[in-house]
Amino acid sequence: MSKRKDDVSDLGITVKKSENLSEWYQQVVLKSGLADYSPVGGCMVYLPWSYAIWEKIRDYFDKEIKALGHQNAYFPLFIPESLLRRESEHFAGFTPEVAWVEQRENEKAEERLAIRPTSETIMYYMYSKWIKSYRDLPLLLNQWNSVVRWETKSTKLFLRTREFLWQEGHTAHASKDEADKEVFTILRLYQKMLKELLAIPSLSGLKSEGEKFAGALYTATIETLMPDGKALQAGTSHNLGQNFAKVFDIQFLTKEQNKDYVWQTSWGVSTRLIGALVMVHGDDRGLILPPNVAPIQVVIVPIYYGVGDEEKVVLKSQKLFGELEKIGFRVKIDDRKDKTPGWKFNEWELKGVPLRIEVGPKDVEKSQTIFVKRDTLEKFAVSDEEFLDKARKTMCEIQQNLLNKAEDFLVKNQFDAADYGEFKDLLEKKGGFIKTSWCGSLECEKRVQEETGATVRLIPYDDNALKQTKCFRCDKAAEKLAYFARSY
Amino acid sequence: MSKRKDDVSDLGITVKKSENLSEWYQQVVLKSGLADYSPVGGCMVYLPWSYAIWEKIRDYFDKEIKALGHQNAYFPLFIPESLLRRESEHFAGFTPEVAWVEQRENEKAEERLAIRPTSETIMYYMYSKWIKSYRDLPLLLNQWNSVVRWETKSTKLFLRTREFLWQEGHTAHASKDEADKEVFTILRLYQKMLKELLAIPSLSGLKSEGEKFAGALYTATIETLMPDGKALQAGTSHNLGQNFAKVFDIQFLTKEQNKDYVWQTSWGVSTRLIGALVMVHGDDRGLILPPNVAPIQVVIVPIYYGVGDEEKVVLKSQKLFGELEKIGFRVKIDDRKDKTPGWKFNEWELKGVPLRIEVGPKDVEKSQTIFVKRDTLEKFAVSDEEFLDKARKTMCEIQQNLLNKAEDFLVKNQFDAADYGEFKDLLEKKGGFIKTSWCGSLECEKRVQEETGATVRLIPYDDNALKQTKCFRCDKAAEKLAYFARSY
Repeated sequence: MSKRKDDVSDLGITVKKSENLSEWYQQVVLKSGLADYSPVGGCMVYLPWSYAIWEKIRDYFDKEIKALGHQNAYFPLFIPESLLRRESEHFAGFTPEVAWVEQRENEKAEERLAIRPTSETIMYYMYSKWIKSYRDLPLLLNQWNSVVRWETKSTKLFLRTREFLWQEGHTAHASKDEADKEVFTILRLYQKMLKELLAIPSLSGLKSEGEKFAGALYTATIETLMPDGKALQAGTSHNLGQNFAKVFDIQFLTKEQNKDYVWQTSWGVSTRLIGALVMVHGDDRGLILPPNVAPIQVVIVPIYYGVGDEEKVVLKSQKLFGELEKIGFRVKIDDRKDKTPGWKFNEWELKGVPLRIEVGPKDVEKSQTIFVKRDTLEKFAVSDEEFLDKARKTMCEIQQNLLNKAEDFLVKNQFDAADYGEFKDLLEKKGGFIKTSWCGSLECEKRVQEETGATVRLIPYDDNALKQTKCFRCDKAAEKLAYFARSY
Repeated sequence: MSKRKDDVSDLGITVKKSENLSEWYQQVVLKSGLADYSPVGGCMVYLPWSYAIWEKIRDYFDKEIKALGHQNAYFPLFIPESLLRRESEHFAGFTPEVAWVEQRENEKAEERLAIRPTSETIMYYMYSKWIKSYRDLPLLLNQWNSVVRWETKSTKLFLRTREFLWQEGHTAHASKDEADKEVFTILRLYQKMLKELLAIPSLSGLKSEGEKFAGALYTATIETLMPDGKALQAGTSHNLGQNFAKVFDIQFLTKEQNKDYVWQTSWGVSTRLIGALVMVHGDDRGLILPPNVAPIQVVIVPIYYGVGDEEKVVLKSQKLFGELEKIGFRVKIDDRKDKTPGWKFNEWELKGVPLRIEVGPKDVEKSQTIFVKRDTLEKFAVSDEEFLDKARKTMCEIQQNLLNKAEDFLVKNQFDAADYGEFKDLLEKKGGFIKTSWCGSLECEKRVQEETGATVRLIPYDDNALKQTKCFRCDKAAEKLAYFARSY
């Protein structure tokens, strides 16, 4: 199952993305050195290439939330069973997937400890000790950690593993208004990060009752679209109302000297974003990383055959390396002597580095270099005078082109269905998001899922957009416009 | 047990550091908002104030090791029992403290999974798949994660908890020489970080056979000294030799086309550094943070009573805030209206912010501000002209003063013992590091520990420094100079 981290003897992807996305995905993830399977069933190894991408995501988001007044903290990995049970809906939602620590070496425990599937319960137990007055609010904490959910379905690297990395934000506020504001501030931030950093556009809306977070008042979501027409939930932000506050007794003294329960939110994005990144942008040669999130943005490959050429080619490569680094680019010179230029081109294409710069003896003579864009594979000479300008411009072009293509795909794969027949037909033939008018009942939602595999991905904020007066599936009155899709 | 995160109604520390270090330590950690106890026995909550310090440590070390070619990765939290058992010494060293996952909801597992006490085994299982040739070496990986060791002794926040945050580096090399070099490159880096960032001096040397890492060839260590004369191990770096390579079959093809086992190292520092930071620098008013690691380096407190004064005082405070931020300081204005200046002074002193700047109406008139240094509590006026220069200079002074004081203490608390009588006497009356000539036997080491509570903290690199020809305790020939101490 495992691939050596830079085993490129079988470098190429042996299947086309358009023909077998699932197999293509697995090959790209393994062969590009993003990840590997581990000896623990369902758990993966994040190799440096994916971990560096995660660090970029972390740094971006961390800076933004800190600017908004959030702070990071770290809470225990373990949650006592009695705590996890306190909020019954929450418990029912998570326990099927909980891993339990039952025994410590030479010691039988009094109480089972859950390995955190999410940290609401242990955090809010502490919040009830810390929050006494309106002056303690808002409390805006975030954690970067890993969580464990014992999935029984087959493993899909980054998308379905039993342990994954994420951030979980948990805030407490004095009013519903403030909590609402927080939910959407964060959701917009997620959407902005996906767009600016990952070049992935998304749709935003509310989850249905059947799909909302266990224990929440409502869940807001951003949904992205994969090349096979399946949706991928990229981030969620929940208004928890006062549900947890009541169960964990998080009361505060209001400005008016009354007692009230706090209003809470929680929100998270995980390393599944890396899975989305792979699927949305990659091609038959491998990964394509948007420059803003690429651990290496530019790879310089010196090309020489005769000994006489080596010095001048290497010298020029190093000079360019220095210039690019100085203006803040993440650059690498690939000066390995035991690999051919062609081999290197293949490897860096597989790993998705946005821009390759080739420096050969003729380029030195002509005072130029050769640029190769990873997204379009365009190849062109750039004179030394315009080198830095062109490098900057090319980066912007690649970032923008990837976003444009993904946006175009997202726009073109939304369809209206007037009735269940059309709905099923679109789902089979087109995939994507199927917009339709829906009665809003859980029963209807479940039936659609059983019969078609599609679920409600989101309900747009503006319900006025209803197209029909009757539900697309049953004959009840339509209550909501809903976006259905099959999903990851 | 728990304290509200900024409950300062009982703000002050009620015990003197010099009279009861243990009680003082616990009060400082809780009242300064560094940490709290959690509902899981032995596990703590890292509050934002300590987590921000950990982020500073992480950022410093991460940058340094990346510059040396190391990369971050993430390996599973779980280790199958069969893997953990493979290296027998290692297993024996760690299993007494392992927490086991035995059951997943509705599923009985085939094999117990350990929650990582350290990641050698799971990482090296993967290394054997990845490393094939000398070209794959060195492999230089690091993880930032948490580990679980089910301590049975009583909890001491940051110093002894069942889960703690750390980094663990794991490298593989083609030769013993290279592994040796790595061990000491990292150890020196730890020592430099402690000195430059935390203002904590340390001694460096080798561990005895009895104290070395379970499964290592040798362990190098840096040891610091706490105010009660007890040593605190601050970081270790192990040459694992080929022990794990043989057990996990990590073989590579050498340049000469032979097969050989890799040479490995592992090394780590943890959040116990924060415990050391508290103990080394704090005073009876609370924490004292060295500027280089302080999440907030300067707190500006505007002071006004009449309404007429408010505007000019606040305006000036904001102007100074902007100037300090612009040159890279981490600054906060404490403009809370429901707290008195005196209350704020106490709180920021408790939290250890290195420099307080007071701005009152008279200071505005006189074109000056008042500086108060947290380390010496010196208070002096600074004219607006020399404001930035003086702020910069004061920061350097505080950092340097804290280091000087700690260095002085470390130097003055090392004693030579000629025989066991003198050894025990020094240990009781002085504490600190007792240097003595030792036979090097495990038996002797164990007896000393049983009889005095002291252990070998380190063996200096240069054995020529032997003072006596006979062991201080038994009558065998002395083999090594050893530094003994009681320790955390």
